[in-house]
Amino acid sequence: MTYCLGISLNDALVFTSDSRTNAGVDQISVYSKLRTYGIPDQRQLVLLSSGNLATTQAVAAQLERDIELAAPENLLTVTDLHAAADYLGRTSLTQQNKMGGGPMYEANFILGGQIGKNLPTIIMLYPQGNYITTSPTTPFLQIGESKYGKPLLDSLITSAHGPEAAAQCAMLAMAVTMRSNAGVGPPIDIMIYRKDSLRLGEWMQFTEDSDYLRELKQSWDRVIRQTFQQLPPLPWQPHAQVKP
Amino acid sequence: MTYCLGISLNDALVFTSDSRTNAGVDQISVYSKLRTYGIPDQRQLVLLSSGNLATTQAVAAQLERDIELAAPENLLTVTDLHAAADYLGRTSLTQQNKMGGGPMYEANFILGGQIGKNLPTIIMLYPQGNYITTSPTTPFLQIGESKYGKPLLDSLITSAHGPEAAAQCAMLAMAVTMRSNAGVGPPIDIMIYRKDSLRLGEWMQFTEDSDYLRELKQSWDRVIRQTFQQLPPLPWQPHAQVKP
Repeated sequence: MTYCLGISLNDALVFTSDSRTNAGVDQISVYSKLRTYGIPDQRQLVLLSSGNLATTQAVAAQLERDIELAAPENLLTVTDLHAAADYLGRTSLTQQNKMGGGPMYEANFILGGQIGKNLPTIIMLYPQGNYITTSPTTPFLQIGESKYGKPLLDSLITSAHGPEAAAQCAMLAMAVTMRSNAGVGPPIDIMIYRKDSLRLGEWMQFTEDSDYLRELKQSWDRVIRQTFQQLPPLPWQPHAQVKP
Repeated sequence: MTYCLGISLNDALVFTSDSRTNAGVDQISVYSKLRTYGIPDQRQLVLLSSGNLATTQAVAAQLERDIELAAPENLLTVTDLHAAADYLGRTSLTQQNKMGGGPMYEANFILGGQIGKNLPTIIMLYPQGNYITTSPTTPFLQIGESKYGKPLLDSLITSAHGPEAAAQCAMLAMAVTMRSNAGVGPPIDIMIYRKDSLRLGEWMQFTEDSDYLRELKQSWDRVIRQTFQQLPPLPWQPHAQVKP
Protein backbone atom coordinates (compact mmCIF):
# COMPACT_ATOMS: atom_id res chain seq x y z
CA MET A 1 0.00 0.00 0.00
CA THR A 2 0.87 3.65 -0.18
CA TYR A 3 0.03 7.04 1.17
CA CYS A 4 0.64 10.18 -0.89
CA LEU A 5 -0.67 13.67 -0.25
CA GLY A 6 -0.56 16.94 -2.17
CA ILE A 7 -1.54 20.26 -0.56
CA SER A 8 -2.25 23.41 -2.54
CA LEU A 9 -1.62 26.63 -0.61
CA ASN A 10 -1.89 30.26 -1.66
CA ASP A 11 1.89 30.55 -1.82
CA ALA A 12 3.17 27.03 -2.33
CA LEU A 13 2.50 23.37 -2.99
CA VAL A 14 3.48 20.62 -0.53
CA PHE A 15 3.96 16.97 -1.46
CA THR A 16 4.61 13.95 0.70
CA SER A 17 4.79 10.24 0.00
CA ASP A 18 5.83 7.04 1.72
CA SER A 19 8.05 4.38 0.16
CA ARG A 20 6.58 1.03 1.12
CA THR A 21 5.26 -1.35 -1.48
CA ASN A 22 4.07 -4.83 -0.82
CA ALA A 23 2.65 -7.84 -2.52
CA GLY A 24 1.89 -9.80 0.64
CA VAL A 25 3.69 -9.23 3.93
CA ASP A 26 6.69 -11.30 2.88
CA GLN A 27 7.37 -9.19 -0.16
CA ILE A 28 7.85 -5.66 1.09
CA SER A 29 10.05 -3.32 -0.86
CA VAL A 30 11.16 0.28 -0.71
CA TYR A 31 10.54 2.57 -3.67
CA SER A 32 10.25 6.30 -3.53
CA LYS A 33 6.91 7.32 -4.99
CA LEU A 34 7.92 10.95 -5.55
CA ARG A 35 9.37 11.88 -8.93
CA THR A 36 10.19 15.30 -10.33
CA TYR A 37 10.37 16.65 -13.87
CA GLY A 38 11.33 20.19 -14.76
CA ILE A 39 13.36 22.86 -16.43
CA PRO A 40 14.66 25.51 -14.00
CA ASP A 41 12.92 28.88 -14.42
CA GLN A 42 10.45 27.38 -16.90
CA ARG A 43 8.46 24.57 -15.26
CA GLN A 44 8.51 22.16 -12.33
CA LEU A 45 6.30 19.10 -11.93
CA VAL A 46 6.08 16.62 -9.05
CA LEU A 47 4.51 13.19 -9.54
CA LEU A 48 3.28 10.90 -6.73
CA SER A 49 1.98 7.42 -7.48
CA SER A 50 0.00 4.60 -5.87
CA GLY A 51 -1.42 1.32 -7.06
CA ASN A 52 0.15 -1.48 -9.04
CA LEU A 53 3.92 -0.99 -8.86
CA ALA A 54 4.58 -2.45 -12.31
CA THR A 55 2.07 0.00 -13.78
CA THR A 56 3.46 3.05 -11.95
CA GLN A 57 7.02 2.12 -12.91
CA ALA A 58 6.00 1.53 -16.52
CA VAL A 59 4.24 4.90 -16.61
CA ALA A 60 7.28 6.68 -15.12
CA ALA A 61 9.57 4.91 -17.59
CA GLN A 62 7.37 6.03 -20.48
CA LEU A 63 7.28 9.64 -19.21
CA GLU A 64 11.07 9.64 -19.01
CA ARG A 65 11.49 7.95 -22.40
CA ASP A 66 9.23 10.55 -24.01
CA ILE A 67 11.45 13.29 -22.53
CA GLU A 68 14.69 11.59 -23.57
CA LEU A 69 13.50 10.90 -27.10
CA ALA A 70 12.02 14.40 -27.32
CA ALA A 71 8.57 13.08 -28.22
CA PRO A 72 6.29 15.93 -29.41
CA GLU A 73 4.22 15.52 -26.26
CA ASN A 74 6.07 15.09 -22.98
CA LEU A 75 6.12 16.65 -19.51
CA LEU A 76 8.65 19.25 -20.64
CA THR A 77 6.58 20.37 -23.65
CA VAL A 78 2.93 20.32 -22.52
CA THR A 79 1.54 23.84 -22.25
CA ASP A 80 -0.24 23.58 -18.89
CA LEU A 81 -1.01 21.21 -16.06
CA HIS A 82 -4.31 20.06 -17.56
CA ALA A 83 -2.51 19.06 -20.74
CA ALA A 84 0.07 17.29 -18.56
CA ALA A 85 -2.73 15.44 -16.77
CA ASP A 86 -4.37 14.42 -20.06
CA TYR A 87 -1.04 13.10 -21.32
CA LEU A 88 -0.40 11.28 -18.03
CA GLY A 89 -3.89 9.78 -18.19
CA ARG A 90 -3.33 8.41 -21.70
CA THR A 91 0.07 7.04 -20.69
CA SER A 92 -1.44 5.34 -17.64
CA LEU A 93 -4.24 3.76 -19.68
CA THR A 94 -1.75 2.54 -22.29
CA GLN A 95 0.36 0.81 -19.65
CA GLN A 96 -2.65 -0.69 -17.85
CA ASN A 97 -4.06 -2.01 -21.11
CA LYS A 98 -0.72 -3.63 -21.99
CA MET A 99 -1.36 -5.92 -19.03
CA GLY A 100 -4.93 -6.55 -20.09
CA GLY A 101 -6.50 -3.87 -17.88
CA GLY A 102 -8.71 -4.53 -14.87
CA PRO A 103 -8.59 -3.40 -11.22
CA MET A 104 -5.43 -5.40 -10.48
CA TYR A 105 -3.30 -3.19 -12.73
CA GLU A 106 -4.80 0.15 -11.76
CA ALA A 107 -2.75 3.11 -10.59
CA ASN A 108 -3.53 6.54 -9.16
CA PHE A 109 -1.37 9.62 -9.48
CA ILE A 110 -1.03 13.06 -7.97
CA LEU A 111 0.60 15.53 -10.34
CA GLY A 112 1.36 19.05 -9.23
CA GLY A 113 3.56 21.96 -10.04
CA GLN A 114 3.72 25.04 -12.19
CA ILE A 115 4.29 25.61 -15.89
CA GLY A 116 5.42 29.11 -16.84
CA LYS A 117 3.04 31.82 -15.70
CA ASN A 118 0.11 29.50 -15.02
CA LEU A 119 -1.02 29.17 -11.43
CA PRO A 120 0.50 26.30 -9.45
CA THR A 121 -1.99 23.42 -9.46
CA ILE A 122 -2.36 19.90 -8.12
CA ILE A 123 -4.45 17.25 -9.85
CA MET A 124 -5.36 13.71 -8.83
CA LEU A 125 -5.57 11.25 -11.70
CA TYR A 126 -7.89 8.25 -11.53
CA PRO A 127 -7.00 4.89 -13.10
CA GLN A 128 -9.50 5.71 -15.86
CA GLY A 129 -7.34 8.67 -16.91
CA ASN A 130 -9.70 11.42 -15.75
CA TYR A 131 -8.77 13.74 -12.93
CA ILE A 132 -9.81 16.35 -10.37
CA THR A 133 -7.98 19.41 -9.09
CA THR A 134 -7.59 21.13 -5.74
CA SER A 135 -9.72 24.22 -5.04
CA PRO A 136 -9.97 26.80 -2.24
CA THR A 137 -12.46 24.49 -0.45
CA THR A 138 -10.52 21.31 -1.28
CA PRO A 139 -6.91 22.31 -0.63
CA PHE A 140 -5.55 18.76 -0.48
CA LEU A 141 -5.76 15.55 -2.52
CA GLN A 142 -4.67 12.10 -1.43
CA ILE A 143 -4.06 8.69 -3.00
CA GLY A 144 -3.56 5.30 -1.37
CA GLU A 145 -4.42 4.86 2.31
CA SER A 146 -6.12 8.23 2.52
CA LYS A 147 -8.60 7.71 5.37
CA TYR A 148 -6.32 7.65 8.43
CA GLY A 149 -4.93 11.14 7.91
CA LYS A 150 -8.07 12.78 6.55
CA PRO A 151 -9.62 13.82 9.91
CA LEU A 152 -6.45 15.70 10.89
CA LEU A 153 -6.18 17.36 7.51
CA ASP A 154 -9.88 18.26 7.57
CA SER A 155 -9.35 19.96 10.94
CA LEU A 156 -6.05 21.64 10.19
CA ILE A 157 -5.48 22.48 6.55
CA THR A 158 -6.54 25.67 4.82
CA SER A 159 -4.94 27.16 1.74
CA ALA A 160 -3.86 30.16 3.86
CA HIS A 161 -1.24 28.07 5.69
CA GLY A 162 2.40 28.72 5.10
CA PRO A 163 4.32 25.87 3.46
CA GLU A 164 6.27 24.93 6.61
CA ALA A 165 3.10 24.59 8.72
CA ALA A 166 1.34 22.66 5.96
CA ALA A 167 4.37 20.39 5.60
CA GLN A 168 4.19 19.69 9.31
CA CYS A 169 0.47 18.81 9.01
CA ALA A 170 1.38 16.53 6.13
CA MET A 171 4.06 14.78 8.19
CA LEU A 172 1.58 14.35 11.03
CA ALA A 173 -0.99 12.81 8.68
CA MET A 174 1.78 10.53 7.40
CA ALA A 175 2.91 9.61 10.93
CA VAL A 176 -0.56 8.60 12.14
CA THR A 177 -1.16 6.67 8.91
CA MET A 178 2.11 4.75 9.35
CA ARG A 179 1.18 3.90 12.90
CA SER A 180 -2.29 2.62 12.03
CA ASN A 181 -1.43 0.83 8.78
CA ALA A 182 1.63 -1.39 8.39
CA GLY A 183 1.38 -1.02 4.60
CA VAL A 184 2.61 2.57 4.79
CA GLY A 185 6.23 3.08 5.80
CA PRO A 186 9.45 5.08 5.50
CA PRO A 187 11.48 6.53 3.93
CA ILE A 188 9.10 9.49 3.80
CA ASP A 189 9.68 12.14 1.16
CA ILE A 190 8.47 15.67 1.73
CA MET A 191 8.86 18.54 -0.70
CA ILE A 192 7.84 22.17 -0.96
CA TYR A 193 7.32 23.99 -4.23
CA ARG A 194 7.11 27.78 -3.80
CA LYS A 195 4.80 29.67 -6.14
CA ASP A 196 6.50 31.36 -9.09
CA SER A 197 9.95 30.04 -8.09
CA LEU A 198 9.92 27.61 -11.04
CA ARG A 199 12.57 25.70 -9.11
CA LEU A 200 12.14 22.79 -6.73
CA GLY A 201 12.14 23.97 -3.14
CA GLU A 202 13.09 22.14 0.02
CA TRP A 203 13.07 18.38 -0.17
CA MET A 204 13.76 15.99 2.68
CA GLN A 205 13.67 12.27 3.12
CA PHE A 206 13.12 10.69 6.54
CA THR A 207 14.28 7.13 7.06
CA GLU A 208 12.97 4.54 9.48
CA ASP A 209 15.42 5.55 12.24
CA SER A 210 14.83 9.27 11.80
CA ASP A 211 14.89 11.20 15.09
CA TYR A 212 12.26 13.55 13.74
CA LEU A 213 9.73 10.82 12.93
CA ARG A 214 10.20 9.32 16.38
CA GLU A 215 9.88 12.68 18.14
CA LEU A 216 6.82 13.60 16.09
CA LYS A 217 5.07 10.37 17.02
CA GLN A 218 5.97 10.67 20.71
CA SER A 219 4.99 14.35 20.88
CA TRP A 220 1.71 13.63 19.16
CA ASP A 221 0.85 10.86 21.59
CA ARG A 222 1.72 13.11 24.53
CA VAL A 223 -0.18 16.18 23.38
CA ILE A 224 -3.19 14.22 22.15
CA ARG A 225 -3.57 12.67 25.61
CA GLN A 226 -3.37 16.11 27.23
CA THR A 227 -5.66 17.61 24.62
CA PHE A 228 -8.20 14.91 25.16
CA GLN A 229 -8.68 16.07 28.76
CA GLN A 230 -9.86 19.46 27.48
CA LEU A 231 -12.78 18.09 25.50
CA PRO A 232 -16.29 18.45 26.91
CA PRO A 233 -17.21 15.33 28.92
CA LEU A 234 -20.15 13.24 27.82
CA PRO A 235 -23.24 14.70 29.49
CA TRP A 236 -24.21 11.49 31.25
CA GLN A 237 -26.09 13.49 33.89
CA PRO A 238 -28.98 14.14 33.91
CA HIS A 239 -29.73 12.75 30.45
CA ALA A 240 -28.25 9.28 30.86
CA GLN A 241 -30.83 6.60 30.39
CA VAL A 242 -30.90 2.89 30.74
CA LYS A 243 -32.14 1.45 27.48
CA PRO A 244 -35.20 -0.70 28.18
CA MET B 1 -22.01 3.10 5.30
CA THR B 2 -21.61 2.66 9.01
CA TYR B 3 -19.21 3.09 11.87
CA CYS B 4 -19.43 0.89 14.97
CA LEU B 5 -16.87 0.47 17.72
CA GLY B 6 -16.58 -1.78 20.76
CA ILE B 7 -13.98 -1.16 23.48
CA SER B 8 -13.04 -3.75 26.09
CA LEU B 9 -11.76 -2.25 29.36
CA ASN B 10 -10.67 -3.90 32.57
CA ASP B 11 -13.89 -2.79 34.27
CA ALA B 12 -16.39 -2.26 31.49
CA LEU B 13 -17.31 -2.51 27.84
CA VAL B 14 -18.18 0.53 25.72
CA PHE B 15 -20.17 0.42 22.49
CA THR B 16 -20.95 3.12 19.98
CA SER B 17 -22.64 3.13 16.59
CA ASP B 18 -23.97 5.59 14.07
CA SER B 19 -27.38 5.34 12.41
CA ARG B 20 -26.89 6.25 8.77
CA THR B 21 -27.56 3.76 6.01
CA ASN B 22 -27.48 4.51 2.36
CA ALA B 23 -27.92 2.95 -0.99
CA GLY B 24 -26.74 5.91 -3.04
CA VAL B 25 -26.83 9.48 -1.75
CA ASP B 26 -30.51 9.90 -2.56
CA GLN B 27 -31.55 6.96 -0.42
CA ILE B 28 -30.28 7.72 3.05
CA SER B 29 -32.11 6.30 6.01
CA VAL B 30 -31.77 6.25 9.77
CA TYR B 31 -31.57 2.95 11.58
CA SER B 32 -30.02 2.36 14.95
CA LYS B 33 -27.33 -0.30 14.60
CA LEU B 34 -27.18 -1.06 18.32
CA ARG B 35 -29.38 -3.84 19.66
CA THR B 36 -29.44 -5.41 23.12
CA TYR B 37 -30.48 -8.82 24.36
CA GLY B 38 -30.41 -9.89 27.98
CA ILE B 39 -31.90 -11.18 31.18
CA PRO B 40 -31.18 -8.88 34.16
CA ASP B 41 -28.71 -10.42 36.63
CA GLN B 42 -28.02 -13.33 34.26
CA ARG B 43 -26.66 -12.03 30.94
CA GLN B 44 -26.40 -8.92 28.79
CA LEU B 45 -25.41 -8.82 25.13
CA VAL B 46 -24.98 -5.83 22.80
CA LEU B 47 -24.99 -6.28 19.02
CA LEU B 48 -23.66 -3.73 16.50
CA SER B 49 -24.00 -4.31 12.77
CA SER B 50 -22.67 -3.05 9.45
CA GLY B 51 -23.00 -4.12 5.87
CA ASN B 52 -26.06 -4.98 3.82
CA LEU B 53 -29.05 -3.58 5.69
CA ALA B 54 -31.44 -6.32 4.53
CA THR B 55 -28.98 -8.94 5.81
CA THR B 56 -28.44 -7.26 9.19
CA GLN B 57 -32.19 -6.77 9.65
CA ALA B 58 -32.89 -10.39 8.65
CA VAL B 59 -30.25 -11.60 11.11
CA ALA B 60 -31.68 -9.45 13.93
CA ALA B 61 -35.19 -10.68 13.12
CA GLN B 62 -34.00 -14.29 13.26
CA LEU B 63 -32.22 -13.72 16.58
CA GLU B 64 -35.41 -12.25 18.02
CA ARG B 65 -37.63 -14.96 16.55
CA ASP B 66 -35.39 -17.64 18.08
CA ILE B 67 -35.81 -15.96 21.47
CA GLU B 68 -39.58 -15.54 21.12
CA LEU B 69 -40.12 -19.11 19.95
CA ALA B 70 -37.72 -20.38 22.64
CA ALA B 71 -35.53 -22.19 20.09
CA PRO B 72 -33.05 -24.53 21.83
CA GLU B 73 -30.21 -22.23 20.76
CA ASN B 74 -30.72 -18.50 21.11
CA LEU B 75 -28.92 -15.51 22.63
CA LEU B 76 -30.64 -16.10 25.98
CA THR B 77 -29.62 -19.78 26.19
CA VAL B 78 -26.06 -19.96 24.77
CA THR B 79 -23.56 -20.76 27.52
CA ASP B 80 -20.87 -18.21 26.67
CA LEU B 81 -19.95 -15.47 24.25
CA HIS B 82 -18.06 -17.81 21.91
CA ALA B 83 -21.16 -19.98 21.59
CA ALA B 84 -23.17 -16.80 20.97
CA ALA B 85 -20.70 -15.81 18.23
CA ASP B 86 -20.88 -19.25 16.60
CA TYR B 87 -24.68 -19.06 16.62
CA LEU B 88 -24.61 -15.50 15.24
CA GLY B 89 -22.17 -16.63 12.52
CA ARG B 90 -24.45 -19.45 11.39
CA THR B 91 -27.47 -17.13 11.44
CA SER B 92 -25.59 -14.55 9.36
CA LEU B 93 -24.49 -17.15 6.79
CA THR B 94 -28.03 -18.53 6.55
CA GLN B 95 -29.44 -15.08 5.81
CA GLN B 96 -26.69 -14.21 3.31
CA ASN B 97 -27.17 -17.50 1.50
CA LYS B 98 -30.92 -16.91 1.23
CA MET B 99 -30.04 -14.02 -1.07
CA GLY B 100 -27.57 -16.14 -3.02
CA GLY B 101 -24.47 -15.06 -1.08
CA GLY B 102 -21.67 -12.90 -2.48
CA PRO B 103 -20.01 -9.68 -1.31
CA MET B 104 -23.13 -7.59 -1.96
CA TYR B 105 -25.06 -9.28 0.85
CA GLU B 106 -22.26 -9.46 3.40
CA ALA B 107 -22.57 -8.14 6.94
CA ASN B 108 -20.20 -7.62 9.86
CA PHE B 109 -21.13 -7.66 13.51
CA ILE B 110 -19.67 -6.69 16.86
CA LEU B 111 -21.12 -8.72 19.70
CA GLY B 112 -20.16 -8.00 23.28
CA GLY B 113 -21.36 -8.45 26.79
CA GLN B 114 -21.26 -10.88 29.66
CA ILE B 115 -22.94 -14.22 30.32
CA GLY B 116 -23.07 -15.25 33.98
CA LYS B 117 -19.67 -15.45 35.62
CA ASN B 118 -17.69 -15.45 32.36
CA LEU B 119 -15.48 -12.46 31.72
CA PRO B 120 -17.02 -9.65 29.67
CA THR B 121 -15.88 -10.06 26.06
CA ILE B 122 -16.24 -8.38 22.68
CA ILE B 123 -16.00 -10.27 19.40
CA MET B 124 -16.05 -9.08 15.80
CA LEU B 125 -17.79 -11.42 13.40
CA TYR B 126 -16.75 -11.57 9.75
CA PRO B 127 -19.25 -12.18 6.92
CA GLN B 128 -17.86 -15.73 6.69
CA GLY B 129 -19.10 -16.44 10.23
CA ASN B 130 -15.70 -16.62 11.91
CA TYR B 131 -14.65 -14.06 14.48
CA ILE B 132 -11.89 -12.45 16.53
CA THR B 133 -11.95 -11.12 20.09
CA THR B 134 -10.44 -8.16 21.91
CA SER B 135 -7.29 -8.75 23.97
CA PRO B 136 -5.13 -6.64 26.32
CA THR B 137 -3.10 -5.49 23.30
CA THR B 138 -6.17 -5.08 21.05
CA PRO B 139 -8.70 -3.40 23.34
CA PHE B 140 -11.03 -2.22 20.58
CA LEU B 141 -12.70 -3.66 17.50
CA GLN B 142 -14.41 -1.75 14.74
CA ILE B 143 -16.69 -2.43 11.78
CA GLY B 144 -17.65 -0.21 8.85
CA GLU B 145 -15.69 2.98 8.20
CA SER B 146 -12.97 2.04 10.67
CA LYS B 147 -9.96 3.92 9.31
CA TYR B 148 -10.78 7.54 10.18
CA GLY B 149 -10.99 6.97 13.93
CA LYS B 150 -8.23 4.39 14.24
CA PRO B 151 -5.28 6.80 14.68
CA LEU B 152 -7.00 8.49 17.63
CA LEU B 153 -7.94 5.18 19.21
CA ASP B 154 -4.41 3.82 18.65
CA SER B 155 -3.02 6.86 20.48
CA LEU B 156 -5.56 7.04 23.27
CA ILE B 157 -7.16 3.72 24.20
CA THR B 158 -5.80 1.24 26.71
CA SER B 159 -7.83 -1.30 28.63
CA ALA B 160 -6.94 0.56 31.85
CA HIS B 161 -9.20 3.48 30.95
CA GLY B 162 -12.36 4.08 32.91
CA PRO B 163 -15.58 3.68 30.96
CA GLU B 164 -16.41 7.42 30.90
CA ALA B 165 -13.00 8.33 29.43
CA ALA B 166 -13.18 5.48 26.91
CA ALA B 167 -16.70 6.56 25.95
CA GLN B 168 -15.38 10.04 25.31
CA CYS B 169 -12.58 8.62 23.08
CA ALA B 170 -15.25 6.63 21.26
CA MET B 171 -17.36 9.74 20.70
CA LEU B 172 -14.31 11.59 19.41
CA ALA B 173 -13.52 8.77 16.97
CA MET B 174 -17.17 8.91 15.88
CA ALA B 175 -17.11 12.71 15.53
CA VAL B 176 -14.01 12.79 13.31
CA THR B 177 -15.39 9.91 11.24
CA MET B 178 -18.69 11.75 10.70
CA ARG B 179 -16.83 14.85 9.65
CA SER B 180 -14.62 13.06 7.13
CA ASN B 181 -17.19 10.63 5.72
CA ALA B 182 -20.73 11.66 4.80
CA GLY B 183 -21.81 8.01 4.97
CA VAL B 184 -21.56 8.02 8.77
CA GLY B 185 -24.14 10.12 10.62
CA PRO B 186 -26.32 10.66 13.67
CA PRO B 187 -28.18 9.67 15.76
CA ILE B 188 -25.17 8.24 17.60
CA ASP B 189 -25.77 5.57 20.22
CA ILE B 190 -23.29 5.12 23.06
CA MET B 191 -23.58 2.55 25.80
CA ILE B 192 -21.55 1.37 28.77
CA TYR B 193 -21.72 -2.12 30.21
CA ARG B 194 -20.07 -2.39 33.63
CA LYS B 195 -18.31 -5.65 34.46
CA ASP B 196 -20.33 -8.07 36.61
CA SER B 197 -23.35 -5.76 36.70
CA LEU B 198 -25.27 -8.10 34.37
CA ARG B 199 -27.48 -5.11 33.65
CA LEU B 200 -27.20 -2.60 30.85
CA GLY B 201 -25.45 0.54 32.01
CA GLU B 202 -25.71 4.08 30.74
CA TRP B 203 -27.05 4.51 27.26
CA MET B 204 -27.38 7.77 25.36
CA GLN B 205 -28.41 8.75 21.88
CA PHE B 206 -27.19 11.97 20.28
CA THR B 207 -29.21 13.42 17.42
CA GLU B 208 -28.06 15.64 14.59
CA ASP B 209 -28.78 18.85 16.51
CA SER B 210 -27.16 17.66 19.73
CA ASP B 211 -25.31 20.40 21.61
CA TYR B 212 -22.75 17.88 22.76
CA LEU B 213 -21.81 16.71 19.26
CA ARG B 214 -21.44 20.30 18.10
CA GLU B 215 -19.35 21.27 21.14
CA LEU B 216 -17.18 18.19 20.80
CA LYS B 217 -16.42 18.96 17.18
CA GLN B 218 -15.70 22.64 17.86
CA SER B 219 -13.53 21.86 20.91
CA TRP B 220 -11.61 19.27 18.97
CA ASP B 221 -10.90 21.67 16.12
CA ARG B 222 -9.77 24.32 18.59
CA VAL B 223 -7.51 22.11 20.69
CA ILE B 224 -6.05 20.26 17.72
CA ARG B 225 -4.96 23.58 16.22
CA GLN B 226 -3.33 24.59 19.50
CA THR B 227 -1.83 21.15 19.97
CA PHE B 228 -0.37 21.24 16.53
CA GLN B 229 1.79 24.23 17.51
CA GLN B 230 3.47 22.09 20.16
CA LEU B 231 4.78 19.47 17.75
CA PRO B 232 8.45 19.51 16.79
CA PRO B 233 8.94 21.58 13.62
CA LEU B 234 10.34 19.88 10.53
CA PRO B 235 14.13 20.15 10.75
CA TRP B 236 14.53 21.99 7.44
CA GLN B 237 17.77 23.51 8.66
CA PRO B 238 20.52 22.45 8.18
CA HIS B 239 19.41 19.20 6.55
CA ALA B 240 17.09 20.59 3.90
CA GLN B 241 18.23 19.67 0.40
CA VAL B 242 17.17 20.57 -3.04
CA LYS B 243 16.49 17.35 -4.89
CA PRO B 244 18.71 17.23 -7.97
